[in-house]
Amino acid sequence: MKNLTFLFLLFLSYPSFSQNHQQPYLNLAEAERISDAAEARARQDNWNVVIAILDNGGHLLLLKKMDGTQIGSVEVAQAKAKSAVYFKRSTKVFEDAVNEGGNRILSLPNAIPIEGGLPIFKDGIIVGSIGISGVTSVQDGIIAEAALKAL
Amino acid sequence: MKNLTFLFLLFLSYPSFSQNHQQPYLNLAEAERISDAAEARARQDNWNVVIAILDNGGHLLLLKKMDGTQIGSVEVAQAKAKSAVYFKRSTKVFEDAVNEGGNRILSLPNAIPIEGGLPIFKDGIIVGSIGISGVTSVQDGIIAEAALKAL
Amino acid sequence: MKNLTFLFLLFLSYPSFSQNHQQPYLNLAEAERISDAAEARARQDNWNVVIAILDNGGHLLLLKKMDGTQIGSVEVAQAKAKSAVYFKRSTKVFEDAVNEGGNRILSLPNAIPIEGGLPIFKDGIIVGSIGISGVTSVQDGIIAEAALKAL
Amino acid sequence: MKNLTFLFLLFLSYPSFSQNHQQPYLNLAEAERISDAAEARARQDNWNVVIAILDNGGHLLLLKKMDGTQIGSVEVAQAKAKSAVYFKRSTKVFEDAVNEGGNRILSLPNAIPIEGGLPIFKDGIIVGSIGISGVTSVQDGIIAEAALKAL
Repeated sequence: MKNLTFLFLLFLSYPSFSQNHQQPYLNLAEAERISDAAEARARQDNWNVVIAILDNGGHLLLLKKMDGTQIGSVEVAQAKAKSAVYFKRSTKVFEDAVNEGGNRILSLPNAIPIEGGLPIFKDGIIVGSIGISGVTSVQDGIIAEAALKAL
Repeated sequence: MKNLTFLFLLFLSYPSFSQNHQQPYLNLAEAERISDAAEARARQDNWNVVIAILDNGGHLLLLKKMDGTQIGSVEVAQAKAKSAVYFKRSTKVFEDAVNEGGNRILSLPNAIPIEGGLPIFKDGIIVGSIGISGVTSVQDGIIAEAALKAL
Repeated sequence: MKNLTFLFLLFLSYPSFSQNHQQPYLNLAEAERISDAAEARARQDNWNVVIAILDNGGHLLLLKKMDGTQIGSVEVAQAKAKSAVYFKRSTKVFEDAVNEGGNRILSLPNAIPIEGGLPIFKDGIIVGSIGISGVTSVQDGIIAEAALKAL
Repeated sequence: MKNLTFLFLLFLSYPSFSQNHQQPYLNLAEAERISDAAEARARQDNWNVVIAILDNGGHLLLLKKMDGTQIGSVEVAQAKAKSAVYFKRSTKVFEDAVNEGGNRILSLPNAIPIEGGLPIFKDGIIVGSIGISGVTSVQDGIIAEAALKAL
């Protein structure tokens, strides 16, 4: 449990800003395309989930709760998405770390160690994130991956 | 600890009500119709707003943030909608009361005395609410009214 | 107290995004220039304040607490800055509204009706905000105004 | 209600300690020296981090977010620093304990078991703390150690 060789905890990732102090962002039309792809993937297996898409500051751009999804998933989807944009990495990275014994991550503010949250990048710059909750965390992750292909 | 094959974490579950005691509810397709009507009304005047639609338990069914809307409206739209479904009345009722001197309402948990939040009824039963934020509170109210005509 | 003619509450302000989905942002060097100007203005009158500068998502870029400032101002400065970036307007606008009888604003999530918080724009796009707290709200406002001239 | 001439709201106040019972404290000039040393150490390896420095009451004296640092680090850096001053020890002590199986520490209020938070002492008296977040926890710790040599 100790001597974790991957003490990666807050790993440097992709910081690079354009010279003229401009950065890309995510708009509602793009968020809707991503959400539609997530919903289509979920329906394919008859899964019911909440889809949450955040901007680069962690604020909601779009949320949809498919019929029959447990109400707890409304917050969980947002929490996964928040973790992904706050730490610029998949929530699966934290899940794996906890599964390998990295319990200290459980106390990291805003980190959720459960698959289903992914950051969204444009030109290597983080512009937001997606969080999925409602089925198993592996299935939530499958939906999130499929969704980002729509961007 | 790793290789948990049943990473089910958030298990799929289905709603089911007894045959005899039924209540109407709002589904995602209806929430989308309402949201589309709100967005259309907003675009008509070039207004940018956040649209939040809640179910009868006060949980988010759908949220959209139109491009350019101030980020503060993400929470405000949800707060207005929450007030409307928690108290089964328009937030305008509380606004009028405060404007008439009823400052005690400012301490009422979950009440927001600012126009733009409306309850949604079916057959006289409350099924959810809508909250709009982004322009003036009167304009937010106009959008909310227009949206509910789509139901 | 009623019939407030300026029911401006959430007024549309400056939304406009570049065509190519890029937007300007505030960097640390700029935040330091703004903070230095605030500090210089404060020292000119022997005022002690907390200076808080946020990015466009409401996250801290820089904070300084001058020696002798009351500890309560650490949160107040951040709250003023958050209000300014969340609602794209000076906290003085909310202060004036409350002074004219608009008490409903006291319940608006994240709004602080006390002078001393200003949004920061580049090319008409909001990129962050500054919040000052420590002396009178009028003096806090004077410091904030002076600070933004450094950008 | 309007035209309050004494909009003093947050009144200027001065610290003063009795002659006989003195304790050392950290001032802004020292916090800036510490922060500059942290920033210099980070730049040496092209690391981007948030630097947070607290006083002996756990209140922010200074915070800087270097460009490109994940926004999650704003809270994490403060949480590490808070842990260090609240418990007068390095956050590494708690990290080691959790890694050795001491999961009970995960429920300890305000304790963060992740390297990168250090208390600051003068004459054996705690006067504040530093928290670093943005790269790996070991790297965060290296920056924090380097920073304290500047005092």
